[in-house]
Amino acid sequence: MKQSHLFTRTVREAPKDEASANAQLLIRAGFIDKLIAGVYSYLPLGLRVLKNIERIIREEINAVGGQEVLMPTLHPTENYQKTGRQSIDVLFQTELKNGTKLFLGQSHEEIVVPLVQRFVQSYKDLPVAVYQIQTKFRNELRAKSGIFRGREFLMKDLYSFHANQKDFDAYYETLKQAYVKIFTRCGIGDATFVTHASGGTFSKYSHEFQTVTDAGEDTIYLCRKCRIAVNREIRPETPACPQCGGIDAEEKKSIEVGNIFPLKTKFSDAFGLKFKDAEGNACPIIMGCYGIGLGRLMGTIAEISHDEQGIIWPESVAPFTVHLLTAGKASESLIQKADDLYATLQKNGIDVLYDNRYDTQAGAKFADADLIGIPWRIVISEKTIEKNGVEIKKRNNGTTTILSIKEAITSIKER
Amino acid sequence: MKQSHLFTRTVREAPKDEASANAQLLIRAGFIDKLIAGVYSYLPLGLRVLKNIERIIREEINAVGGQEVLMPTLHPTENYQKTGRQSIDVLFQTELKNGTKLFLGQSHEEIVVPLVQRFVQSYKDLPVAVYQIQTKFRNELRAKSGIFRGREFLMKDLYSFHANQKDFDAYYETLKQAYVKIFTRCGIGDATFVTHASGGTFSKYSHEFQTVTDAGEDTIYLCRKCRIAVNREIRPETPACPQCGGIDAEEKKSIEVGNIFPLKTKFSDAFGLKFKDAEGNACPIIMGCYGIGLGRLMGTIAEISHDEQGIIWPESVAPFTVHLLTAGKASESLIQKADDLYATLQKNGIDVLYDNRYDTQAGAKFADADLIGIPWRIVISEKTIEKNGVEIKKRNNGTTTILSIKEAITSIKER
Repeated sequence: MKQSHLFTRTVREAPKDEASANAQLLIRAGFIDKLIAGVYSYLPLGLRVLKNIERIIREEINAVGGQEVLMPTLHPTENYQKTGRQSIDVLFQTELKNGTKLFLGQSHEEIVVPLVQRFVQSYKDLPVAVYQIQTKFRNELRAKSGIFRGREFLMKDLYSFHANQKDFDAYYETLKQAYVKIFTRCGIGDATFVTHASGGTFSKYSHEFQTVTDAGEDTIYLCRKCRIAVNREIRPETPACPQCGGIDAEEKKSIEVGNIFPLKTKFSDAFGLKFKDAEGNACPIIMGCYGIGLGRLMGTIAEISHDEQGIIWPESVAPFTVHLLTAGKASESLIQKADDLYATLQKNGIDVLYDNRYDTQAGAKFADADLIGIPWRIVISEKTIEKNGVEIKKRNNGTTTILSIKEAITSIKER
Repeated sequence: MKQSHLFTRTVREAPKDEASANAQLLIRAGFIDKLIAGVYSYLPLGLRVLKNIERIIREEINAVGGQEVLMPTLHPTENYQKTGRQSIDVLFQTELKNGTKLFLGQSHEEIVVPLVQRFVQSYKDLPVAVYQIQTKFRNELRAKSGIFRGREFLMKDLYSFHANQKDFDAYYETLKQAYVKIFTRCGIGDATFVTHASGGTFSKYSHEFQTVTDAGEDTIYLCRKCRIAVNREIRPETPACPQCGGIDAEEKKSIEVGNIFPLKTKFSDAFGLKFKDAEGNACPIIMGCYGIGLGRLMGTIAEISHDEQGIIWPESVAPFTVHLLTAGKASESLIQKADDLYATLQKNGIDVLYDNRYDTQAGAKFADADLIGIPWRIVISEKTIEKNGVEIKKRNNGTTTILSIKEAITSIKER
């Protein structure tokens, strides 16, 4: 994409009402825009990151048998009376013209259980894993920390249905591994830890994926050796590592980027969701639910991967792979060579943002490139052309190298 | 995908509360599920169709310079006080915990104008075309006709911003052509007509894209020769054709699958959205808006392309390209050959739904194939194996042919 085509632009000043680095950088770089507290628009660059995250999640969830659906936001309140969740604090309410009250979905157990009930009858129909990537609404008293805790946010929510505990346990473990892959592919694998957490009122435990960052809202006790943590909310004092028993856990601030949760038969019981076993007996279905907030994940990546100058996107989620700029006087011949290079890179299947704003100062363009944070920066100038090449630099280090165009393409594609 | 993996199944009975053929067929075939009137879930097969429609729209809108964003559902009411649209009849309301009222977006002029205002200052920044594919909410008194008129529905809404009328007019025409391409690619081009329609309170005219079907809610006067229609709502008596002046227009029922609308400066004036021209004078920005409802488009395709047995999907939007079935006794060797064929088709880049439900009667499987409506049906049986081939049939005609696997693949890929 030519940068002149982009309707957004970077802004120098950090918004005063955004405390977190992720929101400040994402707004300054033109990835997101705040409408009201906890409610953001995704702008062209931000949407590209969001779509990359979405693609990674979809691939990994499809790989473990997830079937994608799209369930509605407008929920009948009767369904919540069955589960007793009509009093959930964060439910937004609205109503039809005839006065019928509705909730805006903050999660979809009340919708997916009766839906699956329409189709699943026998043990032969199980297991089932249904997921969606869909917008959730939570009426938070205070929305803060940028896109970490939104009132409206995109979420991947998966619900699994099993004939017995053993089958559930195996799938729960499979999902845990799928989540590890997702966070690794999104570039936050090293900083993200499976964390023992509360099971709420109806389960002994759940697991969170917590990414270590000072901007996080949670506190965990972390055993680095086992890569396992315990959330302080379930063990207010430093516990021994649940795996190795070690007592030297580190106390860390962290942000929850995903959770997996055994639901037992809480929701199947509420709706009478049962299956017939091989002998024809009606048995309750065991469920699990598994969530990842896409905006929160994007914010977390920006939070743990930035420097003073701006964001440093991992290649897997970056809005573009290459940021192409020129330096020095914009002669006709230089512009032509830059245009050609733009075409060549694209022909080689490389996503390029081409800064063709020839009326903008070089300093401002280079500062923009650092702020936006595209992984590879390629500069073409009279100086590099003299050396029959281009200057190439990775956003995450300061080393510039002159390479021929062919070598540059090879470096990028071999990444 | 193996059909045994699909958690949905077809149902024999049409739902009693759905009057339209599209909703009856889409529900019976397991594409959608009604939660409440006007509020549907998209099930795995339906979501695949919706994603295909989305891809076609995105490609054509990107091709005319659209920049994709994602704007929120929760809208501050102040923005509507500026445009005077706070009294729109179909707005759903909700509120924050502190009592602040919010609307659920039924359209996004009130959000996109202040957003674009943050970035557009000079004539050099224009034109701009911003779009999203996002869920809309309309509190319809009665939601009816399946997914034709929903209370919650996915919509592509594009907003364009121009320095002068001439530039607007040219873009409006470009969009009209992009819409023609979209509806043609979705298989309803022949039945869809550019229709002169009302401009509401602030514009002399707008254009609708009306697809002729008896299930439609609108009435148009159609000049087939010019492929132009006039909506009865603006001309209660049969008008002369706006193009050729002919007076033999046909009166037809139709459904609006898209609209394009000159907004003039109504919304830019409301927010003071101006640009500086080359002389530094502040001038108002001229806008247009352009909508396509994705669910409604899907319903329209099913409505105009079905027979007694079920849906007949155009290949461009079909959930799969090939439906693979076996006939006759399911011997181990037949199952092995069907499994191999499934793998071979997929290796050739063909999307296959493989009916591997070997405990299901052949009659039921063939009826399911017709109901689901995948464009190509391939049957493998002892009989076809004897002839060194498979039986291939297009859903839109009754002719079966025996072809070798290689020939079958060529036929499908040459489509």
